[in-house]
Formats: sequence, structure tokens, C-alpha cells
Amino acid sequence: MTDSTGFFVGILGDGQLARMMCQEAHKLNIKTSVLTTSLSNPACLVNSDNYLVEQINEITIKEFSHHCLRQNPNPILTIESEFIDPELLEIAQATENINIYPSLVNIKQLRDRKPQKEFLKIFDIPTSPTYEISSFDELKLVLDQKSLVLKKRLFGYDGYGTLVLKNVNDLSLINSKTPLTEHIEDDFNFEEWIYEDFINFKRELAISFSRNKSGQICVFPWVESYQKNSKCLWVKGPLAVNQKMEALEQKIIKALNKIEYSGFITFEVFETQTNELLINEVAPRVHNSAHYSLEALYFNQFKAHLLGILNQDLPKSPKIISPFAMYNLIGTKDVLNPKTPVTSNSYFLNWYQKKETRVGRKMGHITCLASTFDLALAELEKSIEGFDL
Amino acid sequence: MTDSTGFFVGILGDGQLARMMCQEAHKLNIKTSVLTTSLSNPACLVNSDNYLVEQINEITIKEFSHHCLRQNPNPILTIESEFIDPELLEIAQATENINIYPSLVNIKQLRDRKPQKEFLKIFDIPTSPTYEISSFDELKLVLDQKSLVLKKRLFGYDGYGTLVLKNVNDLSLINSKTPLTEHIEDDFNFEEWIYEDFINFKRELAISFSRNKSGQICVFPWVESYQKNSKCLWVKGPLAVNQKMEALEQKIIKALNKIEYSGFITFEVFETQTNELLINEVAPRVHNSAHYSLEALYFNQFKAHLLGILNQDLPKSPKIISPFAMYNLIGTKDVLNPKTPVTSNSYFLNWYQKKETRVGRKMGHITCLASTFDLALAELEKSIEGFDL
Repeated sequence: MTDSTGFFVGILGDGQLARMMCQEAHKLNIKTSVLTTSLSNPACLVNSDNYLVEQINEITIKEFSHHCLRQNPNPILTIESEFIDPELLEIAQATENINIYPSLVNIKQLRDRKPQKEFLKIFDIPTSPTYEISSFDELKLVLDQKSLVLKKRLFGYDGYGTLVLKNVNDLSLINSKTPLTEHIEDDFNFEEWIYEDFINFKRELAISFSRNKSGQICVFPWVESYQKNSKCLWVKGPLAVNQKMEALEQKIIKALNKIEYSGFITFEVFETQTNELLINEVAPRVHNSAHYSLEALYFNQFKAHLLGILNQDLPKSPKIISPFAMYNLIGTKDVLNPKTPVTSNSYFLNWYQKKETRVGRKMGHITCLASTFDLALAELEKSIEGFDL
Repeated sequence: MTDSTGFFVGILGDGQLARMMCQEAHKLNIKTSVLTTSLSNPACLVNSDNYLVEQINEITIKEFSHHCLRQNPNPILTIESEFIDPELLEIAQATENINIYPSLVNIKQLRDRKPQKEFLKIFDIPTSPTYEISSFDELKLVLDQKSLVLKKRLFGYDGYGTLVLKNVNDLSLINSKTPLTEHIEDDFNFEEWIYEDFINFKRELAISFSRNKSGQICVFPWVESYQKNSKCLWVKGPLAVNQKMEALEQKIIKALNKIEYSGFITFEVFETQTNELLINEVAPRVHNSAHYSLEALYFNQFKAHLLGILNQDLPKSPKIISPFAMYNLIGTKDVLNPKTPVTSNSYFLNWYQKKETRVGRKMGHITCLASTFDLALAELEKSIEGFDL
């Protein structure tokens, strides 16, 4: 049955981000359909309209678009990860009355670290300098002078696709982190990477926004995030905002308006030893660093994303309930179903119900509210010991 | 696949209370199975393991128990409504390794207003006086002296099954509110009702608790609730606690310990013109008057119920985030899918996604947090005008 008055969002993704998006959507009577390859994936467990396919490809994405159109005359599609093949998005977009937000243009620009860097430069948003490198000789030349971070242009996350080369001796690392084995010079594809200055940062920060088509922007609080083995371990906030943060916010807002961005977006930021702020990465979607918003704010990132892509009213910034910390629950062994964790008055568990625990896999997260964010973090670090991950 | 380490709750009910229970359970990795007669009912839309039957009867309840046992070696069953046939609960209870909480003994005592009144008397918990009436002559005799409220012992809710008789002239009301037509004296079954003093109350209050088998009790804040046409329209709180409230709390806690209650329970309370507190009704389950707890407290009623029935730790009382008000969104016409409502920074919508709007049907609720509960209520009353129910 077609519901001509209601809102409908088709989600291209079925992991924990899609899951939490569904949970918030249902409360707002935003109907959701999840494109999935397994009904036991996190989002499917909390959603009734799951479109099961064997493979996500040109045919099934078209089928999914039509499925959404059968449910609602003006469905919006959105992504869980910016790494979905843009050709698939183009096929969906070509379906009459289907709109994708963030827009295909925005996703294409931001998913690939090379145009992402261009985006930042165009809008004068500070980021770590990059080098044009197309051969091992050029790479060695730069490494003689400075340390570099190599990042794969596509599909990098949680440290995958990232290589830190302190100097020429580290060139061998390329071997251990890519499918290459012996003939590095022959196989390493220079086109697939970007080459950044290594930033000896003091701390890592993040800031998020949601924007709707009408131009309203909701600015989320600044947070500090800590990465262990390149994977986010914890986040705490809200941070006191200094002039540099404010200036960066304004630049980003200007840029988001200019590119007519719709939906949620997160900027990961390095704070350098000299207190400069440099954008590390941009993620055009809901983000791990804003999970705290479910309990610590009056207005969370999933609502903000949904109302943004549906062009509904957004507040200028979410009211803050309390200082907070968020801790990721990361698998440390390959065991099905770890001891089920519970909750208390002072912290909030959000378990993703993934079918299998795996080493390094994000299995859930836990948020704590306290009188200061450091107290919240200390409480989490204590409670975390009880989790048998 | 059986998960021997995790928690599993089978829910006998598929409405909004079951729905919100599922939503909270999933975050805590408590697996849920919903017994349902329609997959489009509110709980099924947010839950993956829905056990669909044509009718809930002795055969299907047994099948459901076995279904739960196939998922987990020690499933807990719980109820959404105390009016489920206790014979069905007995059949489920008889299944090896199945436990029902609140216990069958507790449910039987509290679902029927007659033993419920006995329960209150035994524990010296003040409630409106009742009369033993078994004929129209006796009823007339009492009505000559005072106004009465007649309440059906079973299945009464939201004013259904409640009759206010101010005096003997109101006896004709019995006609209009029951299936009886002419021969009242012959058909009115005096056994099916209780006969209470009419309380000219100043305001209605509510207080809720969750208890686990180990004896931990979590006391929720006092709230005021306002009924329109015998249906809860709004709730606000937390109220300042006076000595009478404290004394009543202590009596209730003593009683809950004595009957070894497990799970969430709500006491609806009249505050009389002379500031006495009298229990109006007891509901052995999660309750509309505590929906505010999802956003206004650090620890909500659904978590409290789940952890209570699973005998997990409970805090002594939930921390309060902010003064609050909650407004029920009640259908005013029979239209499918009213205008979809959205949200803002200051209030929280919880829509139940019922398939059909009906006059008098609870379609959702909305909670507002503000610096005082009266400001929160005022904001809700304003925002409510935008809902086309």
C-alpha cells in the first residue's frame, strides 16, 4: 500500500549505522527499507521491511529502488557508507522520483580522498599538505625529507588502507600491508593513494553537522577522539570551543552551503603541537564519533541525518544534556556471542547484535554521562573490564 | 541456534508497550520474540523474531513457549497486558525451563480488581473504600448515601469498564455502557464488578517501581497525570515528594518485597481534597504514565522492567535529566496515516506506527524536557496543534 503522506527512507547498508538510523526513524514514523544480503545483519534485526538480495549489483539496486517506490511515491535513498559503488547510486538515481541524499555529486567528491582534499583546498579549509607522487623515486625523495602518511583513496577505514612511512626504511611496510609480495615497484599503483605529511598531532578532534536542502545547519559539539591501532577507541566531549575551532566551523558551514550538502557529515580534525587545526578526513554520513549524541544530546545524529535528508527543520545546535564519553566495544577474539553485557543508571549500552564476534570488530558501544567528560571516561574504562569481548 | 549465554525474553503482546520493550532490549543484547496475530502490529515492525499465529490460544501459547526454548535454554516470558487469560499463562509456565515474570501468582492477584483491593488492604496501603454489593436493592441503598464508581473487575482500561453513579438516578447509565438493554436486574452480573467510593480528587498521581528477584527495587519519580474522558492525556513531573508520598512509597516497597514481585509495576494514585493519597489502580507491567522515562531519565521503564525480570542489577532510582511532560497523541478520526509528525530540539516524538488511526486510539506520544514541568507541558500543548490526528 502506498502511503502518499508519510516519509520513506531506503537505506543502502545494513550494519550498525543503518540499524541506529532505523531505530530513530521508526519513532518519527519515517518508514525505512533496508537493502541487505543477510537478514541477520544488525539493521535487519530491528526493521521489518528488509529487501533481501544475494548480491548488491546493478540489477538488485534497481529492484530495490522500485521496491521503495511501491511503498511511497517519493522515497529518499541514503547511504550507510560512502564506499558504495557510485555507478550503483547512478542507477538508483536514474529511477524516476528517487532522490539520493547526500547527493551523488557530494558523495563522489567526498568518498575519494583525492577530490576530498581538493574540496578542502577550494574552501580554504586547512588540512595536512599532500604531495603528487607517481613513482618510487619521487616517494623516496620526499621520504628523505619528511615522514609521510599514505592513504588509499578509496575504502579506507579504521586504519585499513593507511600506511605511516617515517622514512625510506619504512618503504618495506608497503609489502606487509598490501596484497603485494615481492615486486613492489611493479605492482604498487601510485594512482590509488594520496601522500600526506605525517602530522605529529597533540590530539584528534571531530566535529559534525547536519544540513537540509533549505539551508538549515545543525552544528554538533566538538569532541576529542582517541584511536588505538588506528581504530576509534573512545570519544569525549563537549570540548570548550576556542577561536580556531569557531573559525573552522564557519569555513565548513560556508563550504557545506556552497556544495548544497544534505544530511549528516563528520570532519575528523588533528590538533597539532602548535594548536593548529587540520582536517584529517571527511565522512559524508552518520559517524562513530557522534554516537554519544543518542544519550548525551537532546537531538541525536540519526534524527539529524534523517530530518536533513528529508528537508525538515533542524535546530541550530543540539542542546547538551551532560558531559559525556563513548567507548567502542571492540572484539578481541573470534567467539560467537560474548557474555551479554548489561547497563546501569550511569551508562548506556548499545549492542549491535552482530552474528559473530571478530578480532577488531566493533560489536557495540557504551556511553557514559557524568559531571565532567573525564569522569565519564574513567567510569567507562572501569566498567569496560566487565565485558568479556 | 541456541545461545546459552545470552538473555532471551518472549513477549506476550505486540502493541506499543511490547514495541518499546523490544527497542530497549535490542540495545542491551536481550533477544526478544513477540507472539503476534499480525506482523503489521507495532512491536513486529521493530523486531525480527515475531511468532505469527492465527489466534492466541492453548495450542499456540505452547508452540510459542517451545519456540522460545529453541532460541535459548532459559527464556523468560513477560506480559504486555495483565488481562491475558491466566490459563494460557499456566500452560506456558508448565513448560519446563520457562519462567514468567511478573509471576503468575502476582499477575492473578493484581489483574482482577477484587483481589487487587485485597492486596492493598493486607499491606495497609490506602485505597478508596469498596462495598460488597450483590443486588440492585443493595446498590440503591448505598447510592442513597453516596456516589459510587463501578469498575469491572477485569479488562478495564482507559475508562472502559468504569461507571460513575452519582446517585440512584444514574442507575440508567448501566444500560448505556454495558451490552444490557432492558432487564438490568436480570442481566447485570454483580460478581463482575467492584463498588468504590467516588473520590472527588484534587489531582491524579502515579508512581512506578521495578523489582528484581534478588530484592533490589528501583523507585521512579512521582508524576501527575491528567485524564480526559477517562484516558490519560498528559503526565508531568518529577513532583516534589512530601511525607505522605514517602510513607506510601515505603508501604508499597514492603508489599512488593513480601509478594516477591519481579518487573515493573505502576500505582495510580488519587490525591484527595484533604491531601490524602489513595491508590486508584495497580498495573503490573510497563505503563503509559512512565513513557517520559525514555528521554527524561537516565534509566527508563523498559530497561527497568527487562533487567528486573532478568534479575539483573537495578539502581535505587533513575537519575533525572530534566523536568518533563508527556502528551499522548490520541486519534480523533478514523483515517489511515495522519500527517506524519516530526521533532525538534526540545521535544521527542515516539510514534507507534499503528496501521490504522481510530477515534480514541493512542497513536503515539511526545515528551518535552524544559526547565519546569509546567513549561514542558505548555510547549507540548502548543506543538500538539500541529498534529493532524
